[in-house]
Amino acid sequence: MTDLWVFGVRGMGEVQPGDDPAALLLDALQRQGERFQDGDVLVVTQKIVSKAEGRLVDLQTVEPSQTAHELSAVSKRDPRQIEVALRETARVVRMERGVLISETAHGFICANAGVDASNLAGRDVVALLPIDPDGSARRIRSRVREDVGVEIAVIISDTFGRPWRNGQTNVAIGVAGLRPIHDYRGEPDSAGVVLVVTEIAVADELAAAGELAMGKLDRVPAAVIRGYSYERGDGHARELVRDRDLDMFR
Amino acid sequence: MTDLWVFGVRGMGEVQPGDDPAALLLDALQRQGERFQDGDVLVVTQKIVSKAEGRLVDLQTVEPSQTAHELSAVSKRDPRQIEVALRETARVVRMERGVLISETAHGFICANAGVDASNLAGRDVVALLPIDPDGSARRIRSRVREDVGVEIAVIISDTFGRPWRNGQTNVAIGVAGLRPIHDYRGEPDSAGVVLVVTEIAVADELAAAGELAMGKLDRVPAAVIRGYSYERGDGHARELVRDRDLDMFR
Repeated sequence: MTDLWVFGVRGMGEVQPGDDPAALLLDALQRQGERFQDGDVLVVTQKIVSKAEGRLVDLQTVEPSQTAHELSAVSKRDPRQIEVALRETARVVRMERGVLISETAHGFICANAGVDASNLAGRDVVALLPIDPDGSARRIRSRVREDVGVEIAVIISDTFGRPWRNGQTNVAIGVAGLRPIHDYRGEPDSAGVVLVVTEIAVADELAAAGELAMGKLDRVPAAVIRGYSYERGDGHARELVRDRDLDMFR
Repeated sequence: MTDLWVFGVRGMGEVQPGDDPAALLLDALQRQGERFQDGDVLVVTQKIVSKAEGRLVDLQTVEPSQTAHELSAVSKRDPRQIEVALRETARVVRMERGVLISETAHGFICANAGVDASNLAGRDVVALLPIDPDGSARRIRSRVREDVGVEIAVIISDTFGRPWRNGQTNVAIGVAGLRPIHDYRGEPDSAGVVLVVTEIAVADELAAAGELAMGKLDRVPAAVIRGYSYERGDGHARELVRDRDLDMFR
């Protein structure tokens, strides 16, 4: 294991629909005197990807349903936001005490189907998750390879809550260029005992490490992790989602 | 946000019951030409703490119960290991398909009550979680302050599975010197909108970042995270555990 260096990509400015996130990231990196190196992991928050891809909804166009009004009465959240979340929900996992836990079309399980109202210009706009976050990650990775000739891995991250534990953590919702899970099964540990069930969700741990260099309130929408030796390959964030019939908690 | 540097603490050798983990860590750090700096976060795997505290069970002394035999028949795991896990279980959260999800006496929810058979000298020994991981963290923190006069934060980490998502991640089971959750509620984001529900489990993210510098198969039982600006304070890992009646998933 080698040392890791984690640093934020600053000064990207406001991302607009139609922008190329890879180009903005490369510019911002250059302005801070950095450049990508082979093997870097780039963690990019979902928000700037969603903005660039135009995944925005003007709440003034949204008519809340009866269910949205009922949830709003308990949660005190904008019923139009809740309505958007309900529309983005492929399946309701739990709906209790004003909290909506959704399964999204991607298979992710998260509050309000990942619909996000923070850090957006205008209080009447919400951002949806990218339609295909793996594709978003692949496009950034390809663009970096084309522009600067360097092979990086890309993780699109979002901040999800989880059962049992308080607080949210950053997780991977899109990956490109790395295997999201490191499977130690069958490998002997230092005592020579074969590890039976150890699969580490390295993409989620990388997303979490990236979050530490980003914070929530600053305009630091991406982080670079340098020095982590990952398994390169075609990864898909779907590998991080437990099959429904193997999941005891939905 | 500043840059982070994450590096593993190597060459600690085999920890024995009665050892002082802080002394071993300080020695190992010195041998690799490093020393703690004010504000460092030290992530220590539960395993060496449990070993040092003698939280080991000789399986030859364990008589499996009927339930342990039944679970063993499905999971193909050693019924004595399962028996130990059942004894460490304060409450069974799920028991299906040979998988035991336990609530421990600390309140943590994890497979097999955190009982761990990997990386132990001898196949007939398992390690239990420390009795008071916050206390274990506090002792390491105090010892570092006394020995080298530096204020660090300490996280005792373990690798837990989680609902909904495949793969395990490192989480904090003991903390000292930092607030485990950063509460952004009420703080305005960069668009001036107040973030309503954003509490980040920074201790879990730090544990995850530490895991990236440790790996599972090497003798790297601890990592130092330098450069992360955390809220100092008296933290307790219990803050990371959701109250049972606020948890929709148990």
